Amino acid sequence: FNSKLPDVGVSIFSQMSELANQFSAINLSQGFPEFDTPNFLKSQITHYVQHGVNQYSPSSGVPKLQQQIASLIQKKYATELNAAKQITITSGATEALFVAIQTIVRPNDEVIVFDPAYDAYKPAIELAGGRSVHIALKAPDYTINWRTVEQKITKHTRAIVINTPHNPTAKVITQQDITELKRLVGTYKLYIVSDEVYEHITLDEQPHLSVLRDQELLAQSFVISSFGKTFHCTGWKMGYCIAPEHLASEFRKIHQYVTFSSFTPAQHALADMLEQQSEHVDSLSDFYQQKRDLLIRHLLGSRFTVLPSQGTYFLLLDYSDVSDLNDVEFCHWLVEQAGVAAIPLSVFYQTPPGDKVIRLCFAKNDETLKEAAHILCQL
Amino acid sequence: FNSKLPDVGVSIFSQMSELANQFSAINLSQGFPEFDTPNFLKSQITHYVQHGVNQYSPSSGVPKLQQQIASLIQKKYATELNAAKQITITSGATEALFVAIQTIVRPNDEVIVFDPAYDAYKPAIELAGGRSVHIALKAPDYTINWRTVEQKITKHTRAIVINTPHNPTAKVITQQDITELKRLVGTYKLYIVSDEVYEHITLDEQPHLSVLRDQELLAQSFVISSFGKTFHCTGWKMGYCIAPEHLASEFRKIHQYVTFSSFTPAQHALADMLEQQSEHVDSLSDFYQQKRDLLIRHLLGSRFTVLPSQGTYFLLLDYSDVSDLNDVEFCHWLVEQAGVAAIPLSVFYQTPPGDKVIRLCFAKNDETLKEAAHILCQL
Ligand SMILES: CSCCC(=O)C(=O)O
Ligand SMILES: CSCCC(=O)C(=O)O
Repeated sequence: FNSKLPDVGVSIFSQMSELANQFSAINLSQGFPEFDTPNFLKSQITHYVQHGVNQYSPSSGVPKLQQQIASLIQKKYATELNAAKQITITSGATEALFVAIQTIVRPNDEVIVFDPAYDAYKPAIELAGGRSVHIALKAPDYTINWRTVEQKITKHTRAIVINTPHNPTAKVITQQDITELKRLVGTYKLYIVSDEVYEHITLDEQPHLSVLRDQELLAQSFVISSFGKTFHCTGWKMGYCIAPEHLASEFRKIHQYVTFSSFTPAQHALADMLEQQSEHVDSLSDFYQQKRDLLIRHLLGSRFTVLPSQGTYFLLLDYSDVSDLNDVEFCHWLVEQAGVAAIPLSVFYQTPPGDKVIRLCFAKNDETLKEAAHILCQL
Repeated sequence: FNSKLPDVGVSIFSQMSELANQFSAINLSQGFPEFDTPNFLKSQITHYVQHGVNQYSPSSGVPKLQQQIASLIQKKYATELNAAKQITITSGATEALFVAIQTIVRPNDEVIVFDPAYDAYKPAIELAGGRSVHIALKAPDYTINWRTVEQKITKHTRAIVINTPHNPTAKVITQQDITELKRLVGTYKLYIVSDEVYEHITLDEQPHLSVLRDQELLAQSFVISSFGKTFHCTGWKMGYCIAPEHLASEFRKIHQYVTFSSFTPAQHALADMLEQQSEHVDSLSDFYQQKRDLLIRHLLGSRFTVLPSQGTYFLLLDYSDVSDLNDVEFCHWLVEQAGVAAIPLSVFYQTPPGDKVIRLCFAKNDETLKEAAHILCQL
């Protein structure tokens, strides 16, 4: 059988979580919270399941959830959306990314991707018949050189994928980046796929410069977010895509045949949550900043170097002073011998730069983070 | 914007359900049950949500659900599966169909589809760069002429989509069909995508001749099923795909980037349901046969002709003696003027044969069915 994705194996996240279980290691690899989704959200989903709200939702989503998302966006980014026409609920941000890419990418199109990049972009582009063009960003700053980006644009370039706050580097895009992006997108008529699943987790008072803040950018964009990251329910697989109407209607044609719709009771429950407990969203950055700071504090005595972090629930560590192994070998050693699972940064690169950097997820209980830091301090 | 699916609009199911709401009509159009999912299943999903089982499941599904599916298949079809390697849980049968087609179809491949066909097959084939080759079956018998099928096979033919029990015709495949299919698939090295989402709803003691019964067929097949149809929870979007290991591993690569995984608490709850209340599955055919018979009985005085029905929760009616309108016009008239929503059969055809046939869904309460029949009897 001639594989369509010959380079793809089991994802690094699945692999590392499995090793963590196998070696009873502390799992700071795959990005999911150790704590549970809020009680109110759990009781609302229970309510809708028990009250028989268990059949198909509309394919584009439950209207009151679309409206609550629009309100949140209005409040946070001062942008007015047509909720019914621009917001499509999806089975996780993964589906939203896949469908957005399917919507715009055709055979032989090129899509610019910044490495380190989330693992789902490249296969989605390839399955649409396109080719991902990778621009490698380097530790410790991972700054985008927009001159390089412009040089990579060809007549085949169709879109740019951006991701802010960025997984795995924990960087956020700057106003300067937005200005440059806007110029390129305008000049070369490109689409943007903007992965903003960590939009509510920015640290040290960094603003989140969402594409949604700028109507001109939004006019060429698919903006993707995730309830799993915001409400600690990654296993619910609930996300959404926002696009201008003419792109949203094309997105919906494809979404209709990829999943049709997503888990109905969760859509109603999330609408109630956004309406009645939106303070959860507002407090998320502080909540995660406390976790990041605790982890950093407890790593102070270690030989790891903590890289700058501005958002997401990930922290990068440089381990040059700890080991000579490459990052994949080091992560295997770490989970098997030391009892901590992390993600090697090279897996996020098309052409790994040889940096000695690993990613830790700090969406964990304080005790877990202290325990992991304690182990790392002894290396 | 150059649409990838220029012919696709809002699906007929969404359209008709919306008209039904708008005109307060009895909705026998879109296929979903009016009754709720079993109490035990609701209490189990509540249990897992409340007990914090809310993070990512493994991408291929929760192991105990894979095992329970394997047990059911062993019991019903006497086929042994490697549950961990052959069964992948998906976000509904729609995702399973989409991913199976993405797995095998490449640009310029042809896929044979029997019309009337479920609306998701063609766009999924086209998004993979392939072409759907339609073979029209005709009322009232919808018999497959395998000679015609063989004539349609070219060097580009990659797969055949079959669907049994069949939506919308309510036919089941015969042993003769299986024999012919097996010959063609063997001779021309074709894959089978077997949509068996109504596998547990066969009427009048018809056996369900699943592809799963035959190891030789299964070796070239993706067999797709749905929990929504079996457990009255279409809004949970839970389904699965069964394939031989070498195809399942390719399917999983794509599934990993289409949705990654599906709603975790539902997977655990469905495993408990299959383990502890499998009699629900066994009783489903009788349950729906009673509904179909009630509907037919109450239509006896009408001018509609009931077509043969062997499975699914759909019933076809020929309305030649009721109206001269074409079926789309007739369905609009029916929902707007008479207050009953149905699906016109022509929408399931590439080239509609001009039959005067509509589809009714009888997954409804007895009172609803009687009321609808009462209206239809007056036309
Ligand atoms: C879908 S598993 C990956 C979770 C995640 O976003 C990450 O670890 O980066
Ligand atoms: C996903 S909406 C369509 C439901 C269905 O299977 C049908 O009505 O045929």
